[in-house]
Amino acid sequence: MKKVIENKNLFCLPWTQTILGTHLEGRVNFMALDWVTRTNYDPPMIGACVNKNNASSSAILDTKEFSVNVPSVDMLEVTDYTGLVSGKRVDKSGLFDIFYGELKSAPMIKKCPLNIECRLAEPVELPTNFFFIAEIINIYSSEKFLSDGKPDVQKIRPFVLTMPDNRFWEIGECVGKAWDAGKVLRKRD
Amino acid sequence: MKKVIENKNLFCLPWTQTILGTHLEGRVNFMALDWVTRTNYDPPMIGACVNKNNASSSAILDTKEFSVNVPSVDMLEVTDYTGLVSGKRVDKSGLFDIFYGELKSAPMIKKCPLNIECRLAEPVELPTNFFFIAEIINIYSSEKFLSDGKPDVQKIRPFVLTMPDNRFWEIGECVGKAWDAGKVLRKRD
Repeated sequence: MKKVIENKNLFCLPWTQTILGTHLEGRVNFMALDWVTRTNYDPPMIGACVNKNNASSSAILDTKEFSVNVPSVDMLEVTDYTGLVSGKRVDKSGLFDIFYGELKSAPMIKKCPLNIECRLAEPVELPTNFFFIAEIINIYSSEKFLSDGKPDVQKIRPFVLTMPDNRFWEIGECVGKAWDAGKVLRKRD
Repeated sequence: MKKVIENKNLFCLPWTQTILGTHLEGRVNFMALDWVTRTNYDPPMIGACVNKNNASSSAILDTKEFSVNVPSVDMLEVTDYTGLVSGKRVDKSGLFDIFYGELKSAPMIKKCPLNIECRLAEPVELPTNFFFIAEIINIYSSEKFLSDGKPDVQKIRPFVLTMPDNRFWEIGECVGKAWDAGKVLRKRD
């Protein structure tokens, strides 16, 4: 029997935990970011949802550049910490060793297995949040996180967040192959 | 040592697998949807990225309504099937028992543990895709998928997709508490 969930602020999809990197008034800043997805296939684009009150929103509007960094599960504590304190109040620039790619205001975290360098294409202003649509300029990783030259989730070991229970989860067992498992139902066509 | 990944079409973040429900020229249609995230906190909004060539894009532009349904891992095959065949060619309306909430063109899948009823707020047109920003009208679930009245990921058993390896994954072990695990680093403030 279906029922309406009273809290429409659905959070319980597992979101991949990432860390947003920006330049906030000239200083490197980081913020835990969960609401992120792809927004366009070609050219490759991404979108990041940031509360208007967060320092990272003004940073992105100012520099029009940012990074999305994917931490391993062994970076869980420091990742969570970036979401506990505001860049307005605390200098988080020393938390990580960083590097830069093509963009001057998209600091990327060396220790993160995957780094996505982004140039703002379109800031969509919504009531309480900005949804920052951006072009993916480059993706960076290290050989040890790749298989056949491609990022390998079992080597990267990302983790996901569910809310409102506010728990982090590892990625579990492989349960099937996409664009393949459903072929058994093709007889219905 | 960091290196640039040549394929900028980064897919390897785990995306939660969902099924998009629409009315396509009056007929119920479904499509596997992976690129979905929250876009606003209050009012609760969501965003779904759909290729312009997909029948679901014209369906949403036409009716301005859709649903996002979260399948359990035991629905993996049929979920994958919805992404293998186009609604332009195949009638997928009989795949699932459906129900409706407040909206007339947002068919929802009874068997899916979680259903999100959405009204289009802003279709963002990008080069190859639409990013459909929508208000969450209601969320539906069943008692058996809830704990303390809230959706429980361990009861829902969603699964995630990684690309380009095109594999589905279960959610694994709980590895920490968000807005909490990072408190141990607060001494640095």
